[in-house]
Amino acid sequence: MRSERFEADYLVQTPEPIEHAAAVIAGEQSSGTFIAVPNETPELKERSAARVEHIEVLAPATGPALPGRYQGSEFTQARVTLSWPLDNIGADLPNLIATVAGNLFELQGLSGLRLLDVRLPDAFASVYPGPKFGVSGTRALSGVDQGPLIGTIIKPSVGLDPAQTAQLVTTLIDAGIDFIKDDELQCDGPRCPFDARAEAVMAVINRHADATGKKVMYAFNVTGEVDQMRRRHDQVQALGGSCVMASLNSVGMTGFLGLSRHSQLPIHAHRNGWGYLSRSPMLGWDYRAWSKLWRIAGADHLHVNGLDNKFSEDNDSVMRSAQSLSTPIFSQHPQRAMAVFSSGQSVKQIEQTYQRLGHADLIYAAGGGIMGHPDGPGAGVSSLREGWHAAMRGIPIATHAQQHPALVRALDAYQ
Amino acid sequence: MRSERFEADYLVQTPEPIEHAAAVIAGEQSSGTFIAVPNETPELKERSAARVEHIEVLAPATGPALPGRYQGSEFTQARVTLSWPLDNIGADLPNLIATVAGNLFELQGLSGLRLLDVRLPDAFASVYPGPKFGVSGTRALSGVDQGPLIGTIIKPSVGLDPAQTAQLVTTLIDAGIDFIKDDELQCDGPRCPFDARAEAVMAVINRHADATGKKVMYAFNVTGEVDQMRRRHDQVQALGGSCVMASLNSVGMTGFLGLSRHSQLPIHAHRNGWGYLSRSPMLGWDYRAWSKLWRIAGADHLHVNGLDNKFSEDNDSVMRSAQSLSTPIFSQHPQRAMAVFSSGQSVKQIEQTYQRLGHADLIYAAGGGIMGHPDGPGAGVSSLREGWHAAMRGIPIATHAQQHPALVRALDAYQ
Repeated sequence: MRSERFEADYLVQTPEPIEHAAAVIAGEQSSGTFIAVPNETPELKERSAARVEHIEVLAPATGPALPGRYQGSEFTQARVTLSWPLDNIGADLPNLIATVAGNLFELQGLSGLRLLDVRLPDAFASVYPGPKFGVSGTRALSGVDQGPLIGTIIKPSVGLDPAQTAQLVTTLIDAGIDFIKDDELQCDGPRCPFDARAEAVMAVINRHADATGKKVMYAFNVTGEVDQMRRRHDQVQALGGSCVMASLNSVGMTGFLGLSRHSQLPIHAHRNGWGYLSRSPMLGWDYRAWSKLWRIAGADHLHVNGLDNKFSEDNDSVMRSAQSLSTPIFSQHPQRAMAVFSSGQSVKQIEQTYQRLGHADLIYAAGGGIMGHPDGPGAGVSSLREGWHAAMRGIPIATHAQQHPALVRALDAYQ
Repeated sequence: MRSERFEADYLVQTPEPIEHAAAVIAGEQSSGTFIAVPNETPELKERSAARVEHIEVLAPATGPALPGRYQGSEFTQARVTLSWPLDNIGADLPNLIATVAGNLFELQGLSGLRLLDVRLPDAFASVYPGPKFGVSGTRALSGVDQGPLIGTIIKPSVGLDPAQTAQLVTTLIDAGIDFIKDDELQCDGPRCPFDARAEAVMAVINRHADATGKKVMYAFNVTGEVDQMRRRHDQVQALGGSCVMASLNSVGMTGFLGLSRHSQLPIHAHRNGWGYLSRSPMLGWDYRAWSKLWRIAGADHLHVNGLDNKFSEDNDSVMRSAQSLSTPIFSQHPQRAMAVFSSGQSVKQIEQTYQRLGHADLIYAAGGGIMGHPDGPGAGVSSLREGWHAAMRGIPIATHAQQHPALVRALDAYQ
């Protein structure tokens, strides 16, 4: 009986024959090596070797995407699928990373390599928690039954003390916000200690919740060592908070699992550093592959940037990322995560975001799009909510704005 | 009184005026933002803003290194140093990563950004363990007083069962090896469970140590979740083992600290995945910056590739990496790590490696360079040891080989 296998798709660029290049990757990442080894028997290969499952040749390149000792003027590009026996590693995310994204990006015969996607056996869904809250849990905790959570980020990113942070939270709550997050630069420095910030912020949030029944979701940045993250999580929970945040590339997969296995709150997963993993088109990680691993590990919310953002990512890439978070990972455990749109977001991107995404199960985070509204943050939040209300019903925003002054003012202000 | 600051050096490429680009990075990664924010007072900026410390303009590029919405035909390149108040984050490695390597690689105005180096206050040496063993501890445990540890890697990488692994270890010990490591693809899969492998391997190593007094150092791959890594570490220690290994990019900084704070053995730090962090010349991480963070966190051995390796890295880059591991990080705590040379290594690279590095405090790992020796692995190990003996005394290897048959045969075999 054949054992279960896991698969990875790569974008490969090489001056060598593509079949050879694919075989080298498969060999390097399983039982092969560059020289013949006595123990590499046919039985061992049958048991443990990675296999080249599929090669789809794409248009070639005329020069290498990455520097190296290459000759020739034509570089084959292809989409290559490899598979491995699950029994090489078991259902184990850190060791999966070493296998599908380990010592292969440096291979001499590759002038470009990017991990596009992974497909894993159901065993991974048994071993790892997946998103414990996802869309429905986040809606239940935030009281937002439909449409996006309208969110924002504490600004300035760093520099406010706990009392100043709480004061800003008061302003945002009065404005009608659903979701607030710490900036990823703010965690537990001596000028804004975590506990003092959490206490000051939750006092404001709880007071408002007691008065109105609406508990604003605040993602406290718990990024740190495992014990610290767990202690901070417990502190947030004890204070009645409803969300914690971690910087994925700072804590790493093992660090994140130390939080996610413990957590009883939604985890807002921040992707800062994503640029160094992804900006070179023929190197690194596609978001689909990368975000899948974090979803399996327990990320409830994942950042995807936003349309017309202030970063270098184009809109098609943003939408592919957001759509991928709704794609089921396992048939019995879809492990959908909630997309977080942010970066230069205002009323002007709402229509296109909704039309391209096809649903509104997201967090729509705006900074200037709220605080910069000419009539103040209350009008800012109202205008975003009104914009989404219209978009979700197929009403042109300009039409809807005729009856909604905050929206019309926002459409004028954010060109 | 001015507070302590930490610094980072970047290689920047931009179509914008470099002073502006540097200021945008500093703003984005501290108290600034893209729109004016009411709370961003002069006092807050003075307290929390990152500062542009230095800009050294280099030769410009004619096109963007990374894709983006750029105009223009000249792209300024510069080395830029920024500094931040330590009080923004405290001495905290995960949050340092979010600050110096967070949301900045994606900035729209940057067509290239690479983190070259970091300089941190002594507070980091107090908070984190640093290498607990380093060169001297590794020498003490392995009994290799001078010259490199001659090492190798279990091959095939994955597919051997515990008994087969132990059999290969027997062969390698008989050959006179100092150091053996698991491949990073081998951890705890059902076909080669960690405990069974550790028991089988340590039985061989201990038997040899009892008979000869020489305990071969075996780096067991403990990569996994924090509890797993600690348990495996304890198992290795209980069996009398002297080294554990972790895949840094699989476990991440927080995961690694979960191991290193607990560990009472040298940690062999594997850099698999390094290619996606570094291969695009104007993106990601230079080894110097990256390895410093892992040294502070407790890495005793760090991989640097090798001269004339099978990967795409050139020799100058390899030597810069290796040299950087000997550079003191803090004046009172140099935190030197031991460089691990590997990948296609044989007698032929010894002379140049020693001359360029200037010392022999390293692990010199060979696969084919040992197992492929025409007179067998014993002659393979002997030839490497004899080659290093000659190199360290300034004797030309060819001269030394005249009296040493294993070496002369190796020089013939490895061209």
